[in-house]
Formats: sequence, structure tokens, C-alpha cells
Amino acid sequence: MSDNRPVQYDEKARRMADDIIAVEARHIRRRKREEEDCDCKDGMFPTAGMANRRKFLFAAGSLAGVVGSSTLGAAAETKAPPGAVRFDVPADPTKEQGRAVAADGGYGSRSQFETEVRWRFPTPNDITSWSMTPLDKVLGNLTPSGLHFERHHGGIPTIDPARHALVVHGTVDVAKKFSMADLKRFPSVTRKHFIECSGNGLTEWNKPTLKTVQGTHGLLSTSEWTGVQFSTIARELGLKDGAAWVLAEGADAAVMTRSIPMEKMLKDAIIAYGQNGEALRPEQGYPIRLLLPGYEGNTHIKWLRRLEVSDKPFMTREETSKYTDLLADGKARMFSLDMDAKSVITFPSGDMKLPGAGFYDIQGFAWSGRGRIQSVDVSVDGGKTWYPARLQSMPEPMCTVRFSFPWVWDGKPAVLQSRSTDETGYVQPTLKQLIAIRGSNGPFGSVYHLNAIQSWAVNEAGDVSNVHA
Amino acid sequence: MSDNRPVQYDEKARRMADDIIAVEARHIRRRKREEEDCDCKDGMFPTAGMANRRKFLFAAGSLAGVVGSSTLGAAAETKAPPGAVRFDVPADPTKEQGRAVAADGGYGSRSQFETEVRWRFPTPNDITSWSMTPLDKVLGNLTPSGLHFERHHGGIPTIDPARHALVVHGTVDVAKKFSMADLKRFPSVTRKHFIECSGNGLTEWNKPTLKTVQGTHGLLSTSEWTGVQFSTIARELGLKDGAAWVLAEGADAAVMTRSIPMEKMLKDAIIAYGQNGEALRPEQGYPIRLLLPGYEGNTHIKWLRRLEVSDKPFMTREETSKYTDLLADGKARMFSLDMDAKSVITFPSGDMKLPGAGFYDIQGFAWSGRGRIQSVDVSVDGGKTWYPARLQSMPEPMCTVRFSFPWVWDGKPAVLQSRSTDETGYVQPTLKQLIAIRGSNGPFGSVYHLNAIQSWAVNEAGDVSNVHA
Repeated sequence: MSDNRPVQYDEKARRMADDIIAVEARHIRRRKREEEDCDCKDGMFPTAGMANRRKFLFAAGSLAGVVGSSTLGAAAETKAPPGAVRFDVPADPTKEQGRAVAADGGYGSRSQFETEVRWRFPTPNDITSWSMTPLDKVLGNLTPSGLHFERHHGGIPTIDPARHALVVHGTVDVAKKFSMADLKRFPSVTRKHFIECSGNGLTEWNKPTLKTVQGTHGLLSTSEWTGVQFSTIARELGLKDGAAWVLAEGADAAVMTRSIPMEKMLKDAIIAYGQNGEALRPEQGYPIRLLLPGYEGNTHIKWLRRLEVSDKPFMTREETSKYTDLLADGKARMFSLDMDAKSVITFPSGDMKLPGAGFYDIQGFAWSGRGRIQSVDVSVDGGKTWYPARLQSMPEPMCTVRFSFPWVWDGKPAVLQSRSTDETGYVQPTLKQLIAIRGSNGPFGSVYHLNAIQSWAVNEAGDVSNVHA
Repeated sequence: MSDNRPVQYDEKARRMADDIIAVEARHIRRRKREEEDCDCKDGMFPTAGMANRRKFLFAAGSLAGVVGSSTLGAAAETKAPPGAVRFDVPADPTKEQGRAVAADGGYGSRSQFETEVRWRFPTPNDITSWSMTPLDKVLGNLTPSGLHFERHHGGIPTIDPARHALVVHGTVDVAKKFSMADLKRFPSVTRKHFIECSGNGLTEWNKPTLKTVQGTHGLLSTSEWTGVQFSTIARELGLKDGAAWVLAEGADAAVMTRSIPMEKMLKDAIIAYGQNGEALRPEQGYPIRLLLPGYEGNTHIKWLRRLEVSDKPFMTREETSKYTDLLADGKARMFSLDMDAKSVITFPSGDMKLPGAGFYDIQGFAWSGRGRIQSVDVSVDGGKTWYPARLQSMPEPMCTVRFSFPWVWDGKPAVLQSRSTDETGYVQPTLKQLIAIRGSNGPFGSVYHLNAIQSWAVNEAGDVSNVHA
């Protein structure tokens, strides 16, 4: 399987390949061509006579601060950013031979001009930390695997998949230990789902605290996941009467544990070994994690090594002292596992600067842990008037969908908001509505499950900032 | 925009973070627990008494040769593979603190145990080469960006996006030059599409030549692409009467050019700057490429720098001496741009070894350049009997869809085939049917557009090989 050399590689094929190369070598010494063969205007800024036939009226002035800033900023760097290899930049790439393909075919990396990283929430300790996805830099709907958010409780373990196993036991007919090869023999499923930490936005209950959407919403990422359904494993083992809960346990230093209702496990839980076409990334639970579509991120146990079936929840630390929601009357919501409908505008968003009045394509994400997003509305006046946004793709269950809204800014102060509705009919609440139900106990207010409408204020100078409105 | 530090970071928030960390530190010095708290059986191989209640009857014997072989093989490596960083492997990851999150949030890389690379077709020259996707190792439907196939004609240029521009001129009202920032100001679209080189399988017309599916079908990859539609740009510029073709030109050393019908350009062409959530990879045309859903790969011009609108095709080298199909009567098909419906089984596939009779979940991909895949059939007897395969997700237009079929192998010789039908009603042909129409001229036969049914033979020992059947 590792030997990919051609069998009986044919002389005719070889001559054909040689011929292709000879032709191309001649082409590379190609005719000298006029470099500037067109009389064209720079940029997309309208001349007076053009304004009435344009669909998009752009403001004059530099756009560098609005889009592509990371790219432009990076051009001055001399060191390759994480995940890139640095090459010399020719003055004219058509005048110099490009670099060769890797002799072994290689595994590609991003361009040296792409410098985005996650942002680590400044906890004093880097073992237990949050690293947030730069949602305003994500292009499309998927999160690049290298920028998926991270949340660890005992650091990232290094696990050899050849030695890793998943034990499934408890109130089952036959307990079993599965190797990675065993798990991959089962029929698999591939599904696109978001994962959101229920602590996403935990700093934002009482007042706007973080500047950017990476800070306020960056504990959200979307991937294509592949693995075996728990229901398939359960059929293999047999469940005994009364099997109602499953403890999932990770192989990290925190031995992370959560109790999951059996109903959820049988409905759509996946033991995932694939992410965006390849193996899980180490930070995402390599070689296997539990995937619970729409459930709070903490339950998607990474580095999964054990599933224990029982008749009741296990009341672990992560579902008693943590991941409960303290209500106004002093009671706590427990097992508040489903993530409710939410949305956020990622462009324009906090800490950006609009160069002037004119056309902007407002962009954002909407998602719900209870099914598909049905619709998204956008307001540019702080919620007084709402307009339907365009969904950029067919919404999938428990998956983000990108939305957009064409906005012509008149240069006056504005407050941008988005509001999602999911297929259950649930409408994303305002912060005021959410606090009326949930209260604001706890050091940050209600800590978990902040799914309120986010507001970004734009002032006359074009500065965008995080506000409560 | 680059400064992500919290604004007025609240003392209460700081204390909360400290508290979380203190609790977790105590948890890490957690209670000693019994490591082996269950009496469980190894593996998934049935004991006699279990056989009748199982859904999946697995053969006994090592599975290492079938799945996860790259992983198992890699465990012995001492050097990190491309795209990975090497860490020490603890004997028990729960007994040692994991590694910390990167101080700057970081950009993640794959596990040191994941070693897949593309396979470079052995041309004598590494500037003009094919690098093929290991389709049998892809988990899910998307191709990991690092394993997307490559086909270059003058190497991979290194382009600074701050200096790159797209010129659009010819029979338009106003010619224009767009910077990257200009392009990103336009409304964008996000679409999942395959790209397939029309030379995919070019060695396979006359006899089976390459051993693995990576060799026979690896010039096929699928990504989520983001960019601006050409129709949006065209509205900005205005098309003159008679604007019927567009020349697309790349900024590589080959100055790759192709002519595209205006009808296609206005229907769904995308100037793509995003791939799988981040900027295009350098090998895929960074910072921009043309994306022509369903068209042969060569037309998706990478490192795009110029679009010239005209009333007729430009008859460039790549559409005259290359990328035409020589027919039996000596005439050549030109502008054979659409990729017809195709499919291939990736598991089990060439050069694998099945450990014995029993259950195997046959897996593969199906795709069509003319729309959605409607259905896929699978045969295990060389096309005598066909069964419907399960599609793993809702088919999207001009996009791969993964299919599967549950197969219980009786241990006797078998020939595995898949056959796709697209929404136009077109059925993937046998090789015999294709040659009857297209002939077999040219050094490899008809060179381009081999979309025939692929056959994999399984012998009694379980060896899988590439055959014409």
C-alpha cells in the first residue's frame, strides 16, 4: 500500500511525459509579451460618470484597514508565520521559474503571507486556557483546522494511535475494547457540525468587555467530521435494560468526564476520527473524540478512551461545580446541554475601521444546537428595523450558516445587529430578554450559554466597537 | 484590528479565571483511580456465542493492512512527517501534564503520527508534474488542503498579495485593475466543488497501469471555495455587444492561459480567494484562482492576473496542442470542458490486502461536472449485478459525494465496481463503451476525460489489484 510506483510503467507513457515536458520548456522560454497591454483604471472607486450604472458604490480611500489587513501587514515580515514556509518573492513571478513540487508529493502549508493565529485568553496559566478562532478572518463557512478554537483542562496529550483504545462497558451485554483499526472497520458517517463552548461570551454579560468578535464569539468553530455512530457500537455490544446515561472519559491529564443522556448518544453521537478530510488534529482529540451535534463543547470529550453505560448521570465535577447555570432564585440549571440559536456579525465587527460612507457587504454566522437555522435578520439601527439576510448556503442541522446583507452606510452612527431563528421557531433573544429569564448571578453574570444578540456600534469616523444596545 | 487585548479587563473576570485554574490544578492532582475498572474483551472479533446478534461480522486476523496502516507504520518513525511537530509520547497521557497552548494562540498542525503525502507522478522534471491526492486515505468528503492534488506547468510562484492585481479588459465598457482588497469588498459566495484534472487516469486507457487509486484517480480534490462571482465583476465593468469569450491568464512562469465561454463565466465562475475557510494554498493559486464548477481542472487558472473579454476563443497552446481529444476519424474534440459523471471505489482499492472473508464497508466517491449526482450503484461481480449504494450526504452540484455499500465477502474472487448517474440522466460508461465513442488514439489512448467505470479485483488471498474487466 505504501509502494505507489507504477507497475510495468510503459515506455510509451514515459515518452509522452518527456514530450509534454519538452513542449512546456519551450513555452517557458515563451515569446516576449507586452506586460501592460491594456489601458485600465486602478481600483474599484467610481468615477463620476460611472456611478449610476454601478451596483456597488464604494467609498474612496484606503481599504487596507477593512479587509486584507493581515495580508498587507504580513508583507513586511521577514519570518514565516506558524504553518508556513518562507520563500523569496520574485519581482515578477512570470519571469522566474516557480518552485518545484516536493519530491515525495509533500503535504502543503499555507502562504508565508497568511499570519492569522488563534487568540489565547490571558489566563495566568497556559495549560488551562481558551484559544479563540478569528471568526472575522474565516473565509467561507468551515473553520480551517489550524484555527479551530481550543479549550483544554490539562494541556494537549500526545497519543500514539497504535496504542490507543476505546473501552465501552457498564450496563451492556458484553464490554469491549476497540483499537483504532477496529473503529475504522465500522460503517462511518460524515457530517458538518459546529462546536461551541458554552462559555463563549462569558465575559460579556454585564458590560461589553472584549474588543473583537474573536474575543466575544471565537469559541465557535465548524468542521466536517467523520467517524462511527455510537448507535452502531451499541448494537455491537447490546444495551441492558435501564441503560440511560453514558459517561465519556478523555485520556488527557484532566481525565475529562461528562455524563450524556443515552437518548442523545443513540440519536446522533459520533466517535469521530476525521476532521476536514484527515485525522483529527491533536488539539481536537486525536485520535478520537466524542461528537455530540448541538451540545455544549465541553461534552464533546477529546482523546476519548472510555464510555461507561449506567442508569443515572455520574455527577462529575464538570457537571456540578462547572457547566451549570446559577439562576436568580439560587437554583442551578444542570445538564443545560443544547446550545440555543445564536448569530453574530463578523464584518464589520469590533476594532475595525470603515474608510467612509458607501457600500459594505455585512457578513456573519448563524447557528443552532436544536436543528437548522431557518432565517437571519439584520438591523443597522440597533434593532428598530429588521431586514432579512441572505443565507450563503443551504442550512444544515447543528451547523453554522454564513449570512450576508448589502448595506449602504450613510456615514452616520449606526448599530449593527443580527438575529437568528431556528427551525423550532426559537428566536435569538436580546441580552435584556435573556437576563430576565436567566438572571445575572455568578462572577460574570450567568457565565454559560450567552446567546444574546450582539451589537456593534459604528461612529461617524467609521470606528466599530463592541456595545450593549 | 491586530490588538486583541481586552479593553478595561475587569478585576472580577480576572479573579474568576484564577479560580477556574485553581480548581483545575486540584483536579489534576486528582484522586487515584483504578485504571482497569472493567472486565472487557479486546477487539471486535466475534466469539461463537455472539455471532448471531451482530450486525457486522468481522473476520479474525490483523486489520493493520487494511485500515490505519499509515498510522501504525508511523509509530516507529523518529522524525516528524511534513506538516507536523514531534513531541515525546508519554506511556500514559493521563499521568503527565499535556503540552501548553501556544502563547500567541498558534496555528495548529497535524499529528506526528499522520504521514500521508501526495504522490508525485514520476516525470523526469519536478517543475511540470502531477501530485496526486491519496483518495483512499481521505476521511469524509473534503480533501485536506495539504493533500489537494497539484498540477503545475512552470512551478509554484511565490506571490505577495499586496502587490498582486487582477486586470479585466477587452470588450468591456471600462477596463479595471482590482487589488486583493478591492476583490474582497465585493459580495462573496461560498460553494463546495470538486476540481478534477481531465488527465486523471490518462495512463489507464489501454491497460491497467498504476497500482493504487491515488495513481488512477488522485487528480481529483474537493474544497469549500470562497470568492467573488465573475458576474458581479462584469456588472461593475459593463460588457460590450459580442463579448462571448474570456481569456484567463495566470501569473506563473508558464503564464497559463485558457479561453472560457462567457455563458459559463456569467453562470457560475468564481474568482476564488478562499479555500476551506482560509486563503488559497500557494499550490492552488494564492492569492486568487479562477473556479469553474465542473470544468476540467486546467481551466481553473491559478495565480489569476488577467481576464480579457473577446468575441472568440484565443486558441492558446493549452486548448490546441493540449487539452483536445483526438477521435478515431482523426478529428479532435476541442473545448471539451465539462467533466462527465464518474465514480470510484476507494476502499477496498488497489494494493490493499483484505485479511479474510467477512464484513467490509465499501467506500468511494462519485461526482459530475454537469450537476448533482443522482445515484450510485455498486457491483461485486464485475458488473453482472448492481446494488444501490448509500450516499453519505445530500449531493451538491459539481461536488463529490461519498457513497458506501455493506459487503460481506465470501472469500472467493470478486471484482468491485461503482457506477454513477447524474441529474441529467447520464450514466457512467464502461471503458468499452467509452472507447467505442471516443476511440483510442494518442500515445495513451484518448489521453483526456477517462471517466469509465473502475474495476478492482480481489483474489482468494485478499489482494486487491487494478484490472480492466
